[in-house]
Amino acid sequence: MTQPLRLGLAGLGTVGTGVVRIVQTHADLIAARTGRPVVISAVSARSKGKDRGVKLDAYGWEDDPVALARRDDVDVFVELMGGSDGPAKDATEVAIASGKDVVTANKALLAVHGHALALSAEAAGRVIRFEAAVAGGIPVIKALTEGLAGNQIARVMGVMNGTCNYILTRMEETGQGYNVLFDECAKLGYLEADPNLDVGGIDAGHKLSLLAAIAFGTQVDFDSVELEGIQSITLEDIRQAADMGYKIKLLGVAQMTGRGLEQRMSPCLVPDTSPLGQLQGGTNMVVLEGDAVGQIVLRGAGAGSGPTASAVMADVMDIARGLRLPTFGQPATTLRKARAARAAVPAPYYLRMQLLDKPGALAKVARVLGDSGISIDRMRQYGHQDTTAPVLIVTHKTTRSALDEALAAFGATGVVAAEPVAIRIEAV
Amino acid sequence: MTQPLRLGLAGLGTVGTGVVRIVQTHADLIAARTGRPVVISAVSARSKGKDRGVKLDAYGWEDDPVALARRDDVDVFVELMGGSDGPAKDATEVAIASGKDVVTANKALLAVHGHALALSAEAAGRVIRFEAAVAGGIPVIKALTEGLAGNQIARVMGVMNGTCNYILTRMEETGQGYNVLFDECAKLGYLEADPNLDVGGIDAGHKLSLLAAIAFGTQVDFDSVELEGIQSITLEDIRQAADMGYKIKLLGVAQMTGRGLEQRMSPCLVPDTSPLGQLQGGTNMVVLEGDAVGQIVLRGAGAGSGPTASAVMADVMDIARGLRLPTFGQPATTLRKARAARAAVPAPYYLRMQLLDKPGALAKVARVLGDSGISIDRMRQYGHQDTTAPVLIVTHKTTRSALDEALAAFGATGVVAAEPVAIRIEAV
Repeated sequence: MTQPLRLGLAGLGTVGTGVVRIVQTHADLIAARTGRPVVISAVSARSKGKDRGVKLDAYGWEDDPVALARRDDVDVFVELMGGSDGPAKDATEVAIASGKDVVTANKALLAVHGHALALSAEAAGRVIRFEAAVAGGIPVIKALTEGLAGNQIARVMGVMNGTCNYILTRMEETGQGYNVLFDECAKLGYLEADPNLDVGGIDAGHKLSLLAAIAFGTQVDFDSVELEGIQSITLEDIRQAADMGYKIKLLGVAQMTGRGLEQRMSPCLVPDTSPLGQLQGGTNMVVLEGDAVGQIVLRGAGAGSGPTASAVMADVMDIARGLRLPTFGQPATTLRKARAARAAVPAPYYLRMQLLDKPGALAKVARVLGDSGISIDRMRQYGHQDTTAPVLIVTHKTTRSALDEALAAFGATGVVAAEPVAIRIEAV
Repeated sequence: MTQPLRLGLAGLGTVGTGVVRIVQTHADLIAARTGRPVVISAVSARSKGKDRGVKLDAYGWEDDPVALARRDDVDVFVELMGGSDGPAKDATEVAIASGKDVVTANKALLAVHGHALALSAEAAGRVIRFEAAVAGGIPVIKALTEGLAGNQIARVMGVMNGTCNYILTRMEETGQGYNVLFDECAKLGYLEADPNLDVGGIDAGHKLSLLAAIAFGTQVDFDSVELEGIQSITLEDIRQAADMGYKIKLLGVAQMTGRGLEQRMSPCLVPDTSPLGQLQGGTNMVVLEGDAVGQIVLRGAGAGSGPTASAVMADVMDIARGLRLPTFGQPATTLRKARAARAAVPAPYYLRMQLLDKPGALAKVARVLGDSGISIDRMRQYGHQDTTAPVLIVTHKTTRSALDEALAAFGATGVVAAEPVAIRIEAV
């Protein structure tokens, strides 16, 4: 085991340079822990000349990541480019075909093509590792795949997009609206090039689909994740939630139900005294629930150079130590195709609507809910604004389909002024 | 890899029966995830006849765990008896000498004999795994050894004795004193046979010493852990701490300093808004700080049949999957002997004392602190009780040795009525 493990690094952004930094500064520590040196043979990125604050002269250079993936002096192809298709996918496929192991931080690639990639890697006797793809530095893939391996997993939850949690907690702290904080995030560089990946819940949905595949032994199925972003959350919702003892989080929930696999990434109300409710700012949190272990909560930085590079290095060092597992914890050929169940598990909901100031308006709304079999836990009508009155309703447990029926029927009452907001209250 | 992995289970208490239950109910899931069946060949416990709520007839029986450790039909010796010496140690040594891998939940055994056992296991090509020995179901050994392997670890902290945290949080909630809650715990069966293992901090200190060995690449050194129990914490301390925005926790802290390895298990004040401060009841929490990853927080059940058995099975399944690591993450022969540093890192302290109601009493106390180079951040003297006045002082950062000097000098002032209470305020 004294042969060095040789990396080919594709992508030299914040994560890539973070990996270079760890390999360079912790060479002795890494060798002591893995029993062999870990070295970088060659790198690839868009622009060779750019100053990245790390020394790269000792490494080979490839303009084309596919060429890097083919190099004979590379044992592990480290893919840090991102994107579900294009160069990241091409190079990963070539790396597997060329007999390399793969370590990647690319949630989009795995959420979309993970099953096919796992099948081909495992057929070739290669591993694909992706700790860095989910919740940054938090070793959650390892906790789920290995640490909780003896459990039937009941539910996986997570706040896994730091930018969304930053916006939501800053709205509450500062009293600023969504748009102001969205612009602040854009200025701070907290947003992806396509901001909808963040605020639309897509990025976090990718991550959830990966956790679900491991947790339930199913083929990764991002297309079945119900996605709802945070764009329609108002200060009013945040304040009303706080009044009732809740926080609003962009929360991912995956659970296996009698009707199939439920995967949701959407704003939810969670109790403000729960670990998820207490999570402030850009930090990530993942909650794993197993039949033996109960609830395990993991918290840490979900992004950034150091944390993400730490996760990449954990995968690299596992490979250096000879730890080899199937991509999703069990052979890809044994992963079941799950039936998708849309919000099968009933829950209470928070509803906010504007009622026209007409006699009997509230009664009409209450009747629509009753007709859909939804009973009301709490209702509050408060200070009029012009000709409409804001009304808040917390329902007892109901199914999403009953709720959708009621939401569709509100229009015909003629008393609901704007699109009602409905937010699930998740028992965490 | 279709050969079954055969376990020999020594100890059939809550954890042992929990392991039997998982092996029996999750046979398919385990085989799917590890690629091979995991079976129990034989068991050993004190009394054969006892009804433990699980079926054991299919397994061989040994009265003597040492005989179990020698059996040819055992690949992994699972030691769930406890105790740092006696049968647990004898059987573990025999298991290693007989070519078995070892999975144990025994923190005392490893804290005292871990280095010698690791040396002999590694010389024999065997592994010793002990996820269940630290923080029950929380996969913290794995997170530290593997998930954060690319990090230089800066500090490890933890609330790792559920009984102590239960007592401290119940004191605050119910206003009942330490003794009342100690008796409640005794009745509920929350205490070890020797309660000092819990409330004296020894059990948690064992766990801390194991984490420190992995974190800093040092030989496990329980003898150097500074231990202080929770027995002298009063309701008054808890209330005063709360007033200032703190909670009192039995907190373990291990960090490498310029002067050596500091390991402390003692009551500390932590901010009530921090994850550690928010930890209620019997739950455990471990905080890992790495130079790349920043702060990772892990939370879950620290004891109980299911959670501890879950951790045992994680180790068993790692072995079934062929994942083999040195006991403390790097070869035992490379672990350094650390110099022990007593509370080398300065911190603010909370002091509570009873002053005799004499003119100039407060000035005398303040002078003693000043003479030891300790400056005062906040001081509060409140409602007299008979002839003494309670005084609270929060110091600025000081060393423990300066504080000890001051504590020793208080006696000579003639104004301090009882032994002062000093509690460190830890920046978490």
